[in-house]
Amino acid sequence: MKTMGITQLYLVNPKKKPDATSHAMASGATDVLDACVITNCLADALAGATLAVGVTARRRDLSPELKPLRDAAPMLGQHAHSQGLALVFGTEMSGLTNEEIGSCQALVTIPANPAYSSLNLAAAVQIVTYELRLACIDTPIFASDLPPLAPIEDIERFFDHLERALIHLKFLDPAQPKRLMLRLRRLFARTRLEQEEVNILRGILSRIIKVD
Amino acid sequence: MKTMGITQLYLVNPKKKPDATSHAMASGATDVLDACVITNCLADALAGATLAVGVTARRRDLSPELKPLRDAAPMLGQHAHSQGLALVFGTEMSGLTNEEIGSCQALVTIPANPAYSSLNLAAAVQIVTYELRLACIDTPIFASDLPPLAPIEDIERFFDHLERALIHLKFLDPAQPKRLMLRLRRLFARTRLEQEEVNILRGILSRIIKVD
Repeated sequence: MKTMGITQLYLVNPKKKPDATSHAMASGATDVLDACVITNCLADALAGATLAVGVTARRRDLSPELKPLRDAAPMLGQHAHSQGLALVFGTEMSGLTNEEIGSCQALVTIPANPAYSSLNLAAAVQIVTYELRLACIDTPIFASDLPPLAPIEDIERFFDHLERALIHLKFLDPAQPKRLMLRLRRLFARTRLEQEEVNILRGILSRIIKVD
Repeated sequence: MKTMGITQLYLVNPKKKPDATSHAMASGATDVLDACVITNCLADALAGATLAVGVTARRRDLSPELKPLRDAAPMLGQHAHSQGLALVFGTEMSGLTNEEIGSCQALVTIPANPAYSSLNLAAAVQIVTYELRLACIDTPIFASDLPPLAPIEDIERFFDHLERALIHLKFLDPAQPKRLMLRLRRLFARTRLEQEEVNILRGILSRIIKVD
């Protein structure tokens, strides 16, 4: 990642913390290791980001839209310039869980050889950060005229609020929630909610809960 | 290289021949190792190719033209399709020698972070073969299996319904509507609502209006 100019590493609940072996293997990029942030859950790692993009080999049911990496590169470049972009990678062995996928607003995939598609984690990180670097070099900066996006933690609070409102309305049965929240998450994941929009939506939800 | 659909590996005068360790590390791509050709010099490895492209971090005096990898990708794709393309990588420690560079007809470079530009060999191979793969694929790989979008007239009915629900909630004052509906239209315009999602949203709105 450092070869591509990216230096903020978050490790979510790692089996091992960076140690002497990691430092030896980092061959000069030890500053990235030393500055890495270890969190207990993905949500903590994503706090402050406005777009979380998962890297995965396949689309899941009701997941955000999956784009080939190259097609998504301009979007990645814009978000990296203007606001907080988080790239989310799964473990070496099993990739991202469905729950982790659900925390992402967009998904990208590397179009690998269908007969042998399993890139290892380092290879996937290298390709994705390479695309991001080229996108950042190429993308003009439009930052100033876009309204600020809501940070991911505010969006999570909105989803909590929405769920409570739907339960209040008896539209959602907490005993049988089915996949309603997943569907609604997917809908809003596509929008890139702005801060002001989250405020409006939460105002509506407050009114729903207060109304009777 | 196999993840990117490339399978012809030549090793020029390697320190060690592929052994049990190599096979263990190849995790499933052992067919590439088994079929690899070992030669004593670069010229033998290049025999039969029509374009040898060296991968290097920097231009040398009197070397062939050095292009950023992305700019050279169309040329690589054409040669890979039509004729024999050879990608030439140097050793992990010191890259290509000047003599090896001289055996190449073109050079490409990966635009890495100038402050930390030394990709390891595997990383460089991964990026170059990724670019080559994309250059060789002309057909989109993703069939569109997305759920049907809602027709515009249904979306308009949804907006009507939303407005009535907001008035019911006294969140929207019809005498002073300001730009609330415009904002909400803008939000949903970005999503490309699916038919099923419009149905869910209208179900929620009906419940809001019925609740008191």
